Amino acid sequence: MISRQQIKYITSLQQKKYRNEHKAYVIEGEKMVEEALHQIPERIELICYTSKYIDSIKFPASIASKVSHVSDKDFANISSLKNPQGILAVIHQPDTNNIDDNSFSEFILVLDSVRDPGNLGTIIRLCDWFGIHHIVCSDDTVDCFNPKVVQASMGAIFRVELKYIDLNDWLLKFKKNKNYVIYGATMDGANLYSTELRKPAILIMGNESNGISKEIQELLDQRISIPNQSEFPEKSESLNVSIATAIVCAEFSRQFN
Amino acid sequence: MISRQQIKYITSLQQKKYRNEHKAYVIEGEKMVEEALHQIPERIELICYTSKYIDSIKFPASIASKVSHVSDKDFANISSLKNPQGILAVIHQPDTNNIDDNSFSEFILVLDSVRDPGNLGTIIRLCDWFGIHHIVCSDDTVDCFNPKVVQASMGAIFRVELKYIDLNDWLLKFKKNKNYVIYGATMDGANLYSTELRKPAILIMGNESNGISKEIQELLDQRISIPNQSEFPEKSESLNVSIATAIVCAEFSRQFN
Repeated sequence: MISRQQIKYITSLQQKKYRNEHKAYVIEGEKMVEEALHQIPERIELICYTSKYIDSIKFPASIASKVSHVSDKDFANISSLKNPQGILAVIHQPDTNNIDDNSFSEFILVLDSVRDPGNLGTIIRLCDWFGIHHIVCSDDTVDCFNPKVVQASMGAIFRVELKYIDLNDWLLKFKKNKNYVIYGATMDGANLYSTELRKPAILIMGNESNGISKEIQELLDQRISIPNQSEFPEKSESLNVSIATAIVCAEFSRQFN
Repeated sequence: MISRQQIKYITSLQQKKYRNEHKAYVIEGEKMVEEALHQIPERIELICYTSKYIDSIKFPASIASKVSHVSDKDFANISSLKNPQGILAVIHQPDTNNIDDNSFSEFILVLDSVRDPGNLGTIIRLCDWFGIHHIVCSDDTVDCFNPKVVQASMGAIFRVELKYIDLNDWLLKFKKNKNYVIYGATMDGANLYSTELRKPAILIMGNESNGISKEIQELLDQRISIPNQSEFPEKSESLNVSIATAIVCAEFSRQFN
């Protein structure tokens, strides 16, 4: 059983305002909850499940007090999915503001105003694949704890750290103190495949419609482009930002491994 | 003005059954309609627009008889989008069954049971970018004229040809008559970046959950994998299929240009 108040609390977390206020977010589905149980048990605030999972998931004794068996009807109310999967958890957010710049590894992905939740989730997932631990996001990038981002990340949200910050300020300071090469994916950059990529590196990817903002473009050391191979006069003008990010990260990975 | 019958016809095209029956599909938004006007004017059956576009789009005299000015209310009824953009067109489908195998170029992408419309649309868009003209799809791959596929393709659906077919039969025949190397992206394949890729080539990408089906796997000449660089014991087990397709197509493009 869960109380009306708990129902209200969980549904409130579909909104960024309340996620920020409570420093919490929701994950849904058996796979995500099992990953959380294994990887970040200390950050689980609450698990709700329906009869469907009564026999299939074993919860460790240490979190017994946080687990609630709820009716299908209550579950439909707290789920943000069209087809509720019958299990969800409330997770305590890690801090996305105060990650120490000195903890960064030799490759940092920077997102300048990426707005689509599906794109951000997919980017978090591919960063996990390529061993990229840190993503620095402009303040207007979509919230990484948005339910659609979390679902698209497929559990990678537990492993990749995101920092939200005033990007211009941060890059100016970072550029002054560190010797990272700052790469940006632009339409008019040098051919990615004829460029000898160097590390430590920052790779900046821009907004879905407008690319990297003007003020950030001024901070780039090297503009790079994925060559368009179409021979049609009318052709796709750009790639989806998650696709472009994947291709550039793959090339960094290829050159450095 | 449009008739009740036209409204019924246009909305029916949201369903695959009626799209097949009428050999037609719907595109929405100013950019898509303008691309259709430039690239495939002969395939436009009908354009509907609201007052919003009355001054901004000039329709050529040749299609005047196919253009209808409709009320916002009628438009809301015919649009499949949550936020209708005020302009849509009905397009005559190209034939997706009888594309001649001899028209294929040196690189063919094959999709084995890709189900998510967003993934297929994104894959069509990236094929256009990489100059890949042909995608051969198993019969159970999501319909390329599904509204979500069409929107995600961003106009690339007008340029990339898709063929739907019994994949096993087609591959068996194709293998017998042509000298293409058949590559498949699998979890246990050779490192993509240590593999010398050869052309002419077929690249097979599999289903979102299950990868390439067993019977199709038996037809592969070479299994390839995108190396997972994560050092975490728990990590992303796979990449989204559109992301994986992009990375492999980019590597083909890099090695051949």
